[in-house]
Amino acid sequence: MELGLRLSLCVLLTLCAAGSARGGNILVWYTEGSHWINMKPMLETLVDRGHQVTVLTPEKSLYMNISETSRFHYESFDVSLSRKEMEDLLEESIRFFMYEMDQMNYLQIFLRFSEIMKIEMQYSLLYLDGVLKSETLMNKLKEGKYDLLLADPLFPGSDLVAEILDVPLVFSLRFSIAHNWERKCGQLPSPLSFVPVALSKLTDKMDFSERVLNFLFSQTTYCPLLFWTHCYALTSSPYACETMGRADIWLIRTYWDFDYPRPFIPNFKYIGGVHCRPAKPLPEEFVQSSGDAGIVVFTMGSLIHNITTERGNMIASALAQIPQKVVWRYKGEKPKTLGANTKIYDWIPQNDLLGHPKTRAFITHGGTNGIYEAIYHGVPMVGIPMFADQPDNLVHVKAKGAAVIMELNFMTTEDLRDAINTVITNKTYKESALRLSMIHHDRPMPPLDEAIFWIEYTMRNNGAKHLRVHAHELTWYQYYSLDVLAFLLSIVLLVTLLFIKTCSFCFQTCCNRKGKTKRKAE
Amino acid sequence: MELGLRLSLCVLLTLCAAGSARGGNILVWYTEGSHWINMKPMLETLVDRGHQVTVLTPEKSLYMNISETSRFHYESFDVSLSRKEMEDLLEESIRFFMYEMDQMNYLQIFLRFSEIMKIEMQYSLLYLDGVLKSETLMNKLKEGKYDLLLADPLFPGSDLVAEILDVPLVFSLRFSIAHNWERKCGQLPSPLSFVPVALSKLTDKMDFSERVLNFLFSQTTYCPLLFWTHCYALTSSPYACETMGRADIWLIRTYWDFDYPRPFIPNFKYIGGVHCRPAKPLPEEFVQSSGDAGIVVFTMGSLIHNITTERGNMIASALAQIPQKVVWRYKGEKPKTLGANTKIYDWIPQNDLLGHPKTRAFITHGGTNGIYEAIYHGVPMVGIPMFADQPDNLVHVKAKGAAVIMELNFMTTEDLRDAINTVITNKTYKESALRLSMIHHDRPMPPLDEAIFWIEYTMRNNGAKHLRVHAHELTWYQYYSLDVLAFLLSIVLLVTLLFIKTCSFCFQTCCNRKGKTKRKAE
Repeated sequence: MELGLRLSLCVLLTLCAAGSARGGNILVWYTEGSHWINMKPMLETLVDRGHQVTVLTPEKSLYMNISETSRFHYESFDVSLSRKEMEDLLEESIRFFMYEMDQMNYLQIFLRFSEIMKIEMQYSLLYLDGVLKSETLMNKLKEGKYDLLLADPLFPGSDLVAEILDVPLVFSLRFSIAHNWERKCGQLPSPLSFVPVALSKLTDKMDFSERVLNFLFSQTTYCPLLFWTHCYALTSSPYACETMGRADIWLIRTYWDFDYPRPFIPNFKYIGGVHCRPAKPLPEEFVQSSGDAGIVVFTMGSLIHNITTERGNMIASALAQIPQKVVWRYKGEKPKTLGANTKIYDWIPQNDLLGHPKTRAFITHGGTNGIYEAIYHGVPMVGIPMFADQPDNLVHVKAKGAAVIMELNFMTTEDLRDAINTVITNKTYKESALRLSMIHHDRPMPPLDEAIFWIEYTMRNNGAKHLRVHAHELTWYQYYSLDVLAFLLSIVLLVTLLFIKTCSFCFQTCCNRKGKTKRKAE
Repeated sequence: MELGLRLSLCVLLTLCAAGSARGGNILVWYTEGSHWINMKPMLETLVDRGHQVTVLTPEKSLYMNISETSRFHYESFDVSLSRKEMEDLLEESIRFFMYEMDQMNYLQIFLRFSEIMKIEMQYSLLYLDGVLKSETLMNKLKEGKYDLLLADPLFPGSDLVAEILDVPLVFSLRFSIAHNWERKCGQLPSPLSFVPVALSKLTDKMDFSERVLNFLFSQTTYCPLLFWTHCYALTSSPYACETMGRADIWLIRTYWDFDYPRPFIPNFKYIGGVHCRPAKPLPEEFVQSSGDAGIVVFTMGSLIHNITTERGNMIASALAQIPQKVVWRYKGEKPKTLGANTKIYDWIPQNDLLGHPKTRAFITHGGTNGIYEAIYHGVPMVGIPMFADQPDNLVHVKAKGAAVIMELNFMTTEDLRDAINTVITNKTYKESALRLSMIHHDRPMPPLDEAIFWIEYTMRNNGAKHLRVHAHELTWYQYYSLDVLAFLLSIVLLVTLLFIKTCSFCFQTCCNRKGKTKRKAE
């Protein structure tokens, strides 16, 4: 009790004294999709706390709906891309990851992946051009006198604009490919022996061959970074990593409930589950009618609307065979095999459902947001990963004992039915989910408050450069003390060499003398 | 406001729900000197929060006064050492560091230092024997059913006893020599290129020669670790580092106000300034009478009672020449040159004086506790370091712009007077001190609350093993992926060799054929 009171008093004093009396002026870089879902609760809270929030929004955004709330200011910019082109790329990516990849060899996968990444980068650059090359907008931003730029670096260019506007920069990031930005630009130490690179599907416990793989992954995935630098070169700054590295705070959207314990540095803050919140009561009778068996919540995320008819029927008939009632978020054609226990919805209140006491399991594609909601409420999972970070995310939850993983294209009705039954009836899954939930909740500060704290901290201190490690100023060989080792090694070698030479000289002189003595004696 | 309230509510809910309803049963390992000063505020707060605290105390403790408070239980143990022997070692160490060292060459220093360290280790072992070899005490401890052992690992053996009693272990540590325990046993990553080893007097900004020095320091100071392992071998467990590495939480008594930003891991928590508290009003008229000039606070710490008469006179006449009034804590003979502006006291309320608005500077020997009180209150410092971590501590504060360093045996009256005048009149020192103070106060949780949080966390979760990195299970060459590199390098070599052999074979075959054709043509 006393600790709580003292704590609130302290935070209060700090915040009131140091700047939250005057609301800050925050510029937010555009985001899309599930990244916007993560950003919004932070922005809402910032507005609640008296800050002015201005969001940069592409006019043809697929996800950011300017009209949806008037709580933020919006600053829109034009992108020379049609909505159709953007939708096409998204469709293309999904098709590649969901279906084509399974029929390709490694070379084909690599080439197709590189191609998609390249188009994505080109599109991102067009977005950036929309901001940077609009003189009107840039002038408006300069006149805006912002105290901070908040950005998800997955949507590139924020670091460059922060530099131009000369304002502190806070990143909110789930991960970059192979953790390249965190490692190379943010100087986050990541020993490859127990820190698996992002997307590798490895855990912190790796055998020798897995460590070799992890090492190779960390090297091969340099390509996106190369694209990246190349992109930046086009837009005037050749030092992508350097400008990214000037970010004051990196808010990383994981925590030790989901992630493996790993080294980090003072300006990296782990705010996984920042969007989670308690469940609201459900008006839904369907859930109440499920009796003791309870319900299963099933969604494939905001990007996937439908799957093939065959897969849909297979899934539906698996769901029909379990004793639970199933709430399925699905926009595709109604499967013929749909059981009486399964109800399909266009949209579901996912968080409220996961927080319902009758919920027994969560069938998920493995997006971080959904996984975090399940961790928050302590619900075991059946994962059907599809693309991007989803397979890797589910490996995390599986390694921590709270999930079973299925493969969409290869699982049978029986596989899925058994998997659902397993996570529900085998108590260890529920226990692991509850343990992760405990780790999630039992921390000094809830993730949303921690995110807000560090955003406001950066504003009131006009940056947080005193939390940055000096590693930013070192070359890679200096960082690993390779120059020091080389220097010391050469000294050792030199001394050894001198010693050997001296010995051999002494030995020779000695022999020669003996030889002479011998010859004389003869 | 809302954040504060929500925060306190959250901490309250977490704490109430998860175990602080039932008071825990905490065993505290013995400490001495300034380490006891750090430990006490934590123990007081734990008692305030309803926990039962039992402190292991050597019967002939030099600093722990069993009768001073009845708020803790004390469990005393006998040590086969006389108080005289302990006092002699202390005197000997102080004499060595304060006077003898300046007249010795490096080899003499190393030999004498090793000798003192060895005796200290032998004495520590006698303390440990006092606990481990007392069957009565060990049985009592086993029956005590403790929930946690809290220890400063500088006083060795707690990890072994935690293992025997099978209770979670929380360390509270300022530093170990060359950070050996943190690095080797705790798996704290410490790149030697920007993390200076403890006692090195280096900062995070090192040129090449300093990085070479830092590297060498990190290697030469293995000796104490060897002693340590040797000591443990005597007491049955040969795996000193392994048992230390099983500690659940390491509470490190620094923070980014005092320390250079560096990598750390999830079970390392930085609680520097854990003993600091707001100043109480002073009844002292002397301070009030100082007028606009203000006062200077001067203390050489709890270990040093007096200095030579000559040095005493020199210091006193420097103090007599400054416009401030001086509050000097000093138990030695009253110097003849003492000015009217200087008042000598046996004991001073140091924290209340440092927090007084009239205080302009702090003359300190550079102990961490005093430095942290000055940082807490934003007071610039003049450092006169003597031994142990004091020179290194003051380098930290100097590097951050809030201190000037003097050498006791070489400074003149003018040097000291000028140094005091500089930190008072040159505004940058006060500004730096205030900036450090701001960094100290502006964090999500005050250090004492954070320490308590993690102690209670470890109790309610019966350990915190899920925060430990997997690096503990790796050998050093696995940690640095040297086996992986060797493997990949040999493959590259093999392929290159095969390629060269094939080429040379083809070339030879080709040449031979040409030769034959030529010969035929001839």
